[in-house]
Amino acid sequence: MMTDEVRVTQEALKAFCRQVFRTLRLAEEDADTAADVLVAADMRGIPSHGVARLPRYVRGLRSGLMCADVSPEVVLETPSSLVIDARGAMGAPVSARTMRQVITKAREVGAAFGCVRDSNHFGIAGYYAMLALDPALTEMDMIGLAMTNTAALGVPTFGRDPMFGTNPLAFAAPADEERAFVLDMATTVVTRGKVEVYGRRRARLPEGWAVDETGQPATDPEHVLHNLTYQIGGGIVPLGGLGERFGGHKGYGLAVMVDILCGVLSGAAFGADISDEPGSTARVSHFFGALRVDTFREPQAFRQDMDRLLCSLRSLPPAAGEARVYFAGLKEFEYAAACRRDGIPLPRKVYDQLMETGAACDVPLPAVRTVGGANC
Amino acid sequence: MMTDEVRVTQEALKAFCRQVFRTLRLAEEDADTAADVLVAADMRGIPSHGVARLPRYVRGLRSGLMCADVSPEVVLETPSSLVIDARGAMGAPVSARTMRQVITKAREVGAAFGCVRDSNHFGIAGYYAMLALDPALTEMDMIGLAMTNTAALGVPTFGRDPMFGTNPLAFAAPADEERAFVLDMATTVVTRGKVEVYGRRRARLPEGWAVDETGQPATDPEHVLHNLTYQIGGGIVPLGGLGERFGGHKGYGLAVMVDILCGVLSGAAFGADISDEPGSTARVSHFFGALRVDTFREPQAFRQDMDRLLCSLRSLPPAAGEARVYFAGLKEFEYAAACRRDGIPLPRKVYDQLMETGAACDVPLPAVRTVGGANC
Repeated sequence: MMTDEVRVTQEALKAFCRQVFRTLRLAEEDADTAADVLVAADMRGIPSHGVARLPRYVRGLRSGLMCADVSPEVVLETPSSLVIDARGAMGAPVSARTMRQVITKAREVGAAFGCVRDSNHFGIAGYYAMLALDPALTEMDMIGLAMTNTAALGVPTFGRDPMFGTNPLAFAAPADEERAFVLDMATTVVTRGKVEVYGRRRARLPEGWAVDETGQPATDPEHVLHNLTYQIGGGIVPLGGLGERFGGHKGYGLAVMVDILCGVLSGAAFGADISDEPGSTARVSHFFGALRVDTFREPQAFRQDMDRLLCSLRSLPPAAGEARVYFAGLKEFEYAAACRRDGIPLPRKVYDQLMETGAACDVPLPAVRTVGGANC
Repeated sequence: MMTDEVRVTQEALKAFCRQVFRTLRLAEEDADTAADVLVAADMRGIPSHGVARLPRYVRGLRSGLMCADVSPEVVLETPSSLVIDARGAMGAPVSARTMRQVITKAREVGAAFGCVRDSNHFGIAGYYAMLALDPALTEMDMIGLAMTNTAALGVPTFGRDPMFGTNPLAFAAPADEERAFVLDMATTVVTRGKVEVYGRRRARLPEGWAVDETGQPATDPEHVLHNLTYQIGGGIVPLGGLGERFGGHKGYGLAVMVDILCGVLSGAAFGADISDEPGSTARVSHFFGALRVDTFREPQAFRQDMDRLLCSLRSLPPAAGEARVYFAGLKEFEYAAACRRDGIPLPRKVYDQLMETGAACDVPLPAVRTVGGANC
């Protein structure tokens, strides 16, 4: 275990975040959801969307960039659809509530969808898609879908200017004995966070991640990030990479598809109009869906075939030099199991920031968990 | 103009295909649809899925591998869903009929989906997604969705054996003055057809398209195709390429998502169980969806925002050395317009094969169109 890492139980971490959010006037249910979404990201091995974001959320709520006490407004509702104006609220609570309503609608009519507009960062998309699998929400087998647009940083194929965000999409489908299939992916080749990691390490980016302001391959992370911050041009390329040779136009198409379903369909901002200014966060929009399995097939038979499919994938002989073949979500479920057993690992720096954030709100710091005597 | 290319009008080509299908006992409506789907592929610049496939379809129908005179069976139907067993019919007619029914259902309930199982090759996925935009089918603004699984040739990230097909997904959304947004993409980095083109040219494949039977990068197209034909191992990698560095696990996840919606949800074959044997074609399954725009937003406002989005994309300054930025579907619409003006270009070899196919069915050959005196 690295000495610059500490471990905290999920319960302690969640209680801490919840209390911090409560001091910022979030309603009890909203504070609970916001905490749950952050900790879920750490548990799934996506720390860029985890509690490391808490200080940013606290600053957003304090400054009023995110609104703690607005009531999201129903813009349009039909038996199969829902459009919610979040009015600048935090993303997670309004998103979870909307996905729950979408699930309730799908229970009635078979398939339902919802948009949330004028929202803020909602954490990991997979969280909402997976609500469709939550037996506490529905005993029916459902397939869940979640997407969001984000601040523009992605450059269209053959272009030079950012026109879409990382625009993730998530898709969750239940299995029986196997873990569920949970795809949760940015439609850009990588996220901004990955470029930042290379920047901190002063390493060159792999060619095929980013372009400069002329649209040519860029491998200097500082230059790419500087260009993004000051809106000079260039940015991250879509899934599939530069040009069309490896299918970059496909990732570009997926990113725009997500923007159409989130931004255009909800009547909100889209494309280059979504941007993070220094000191503000982008107002983004989300799209959620739920599909009842039994409107197609007997659910138990579906689950058993899902088992066959997923087991056949994870049992594959690996390529020479590789250890294992996964299916989407499996790595994350295994990581979560390890976190439940050993606590959630946090870099010391993140832990110290949480301590500061807690101190400013008079919320006690989560206790560091001792693991097998190797406390750190 | 190359001398080994001829041009035929879309009307003549469609009439020819329709007559050929009629001689093979396809009902009038089915023959019409099958012809329309083939010619639509050529018109959209996807000749691999166009009339070049006619001889293969004719062989399939003659040998009974595709059934001309079966009646697809409704397995399950609800107000928002439909599962059809094609019973080995040609893919295009049953697919178009199912998508039309899905659109009718979406008119009633807002969002509807349909699966077709035990079907055959259905041509281009985009054709069916675009039916949702066809004013002859519905005056309502809709978003269309179409997917299919195909014979396994795609190798999971870190694996060495094919477990999924090119598994394309298509998404179509209407605009107002702009052409519609039509994404139609294989979820593998390339299709088998592209590897075959490199094989015929005796060129090396770009590294990052395929792996050999040990899961290592393969650049010899003959070797890759031989391995696929004889099921030795190896194949094409997912969108995002080899390993996880450029997001190959995302394309892998998308391919499995398509298989879940097509194969598992319809109760049909999936994964490695779908394979083309020499002399037979894979029995595949499809998934279709339609979403009414007005259940989210006033349709005219949606179309106008689509115009703004799509215009902003195609008006971007291109990267240094590139001519233009497109959005998904734009290139194909422009190509189709040129085909309407100048005729559809066919390689002489394809034209000769059509001539043979026509002669065997007593169907007269489509006339070659003279273009601006430069007949060829």
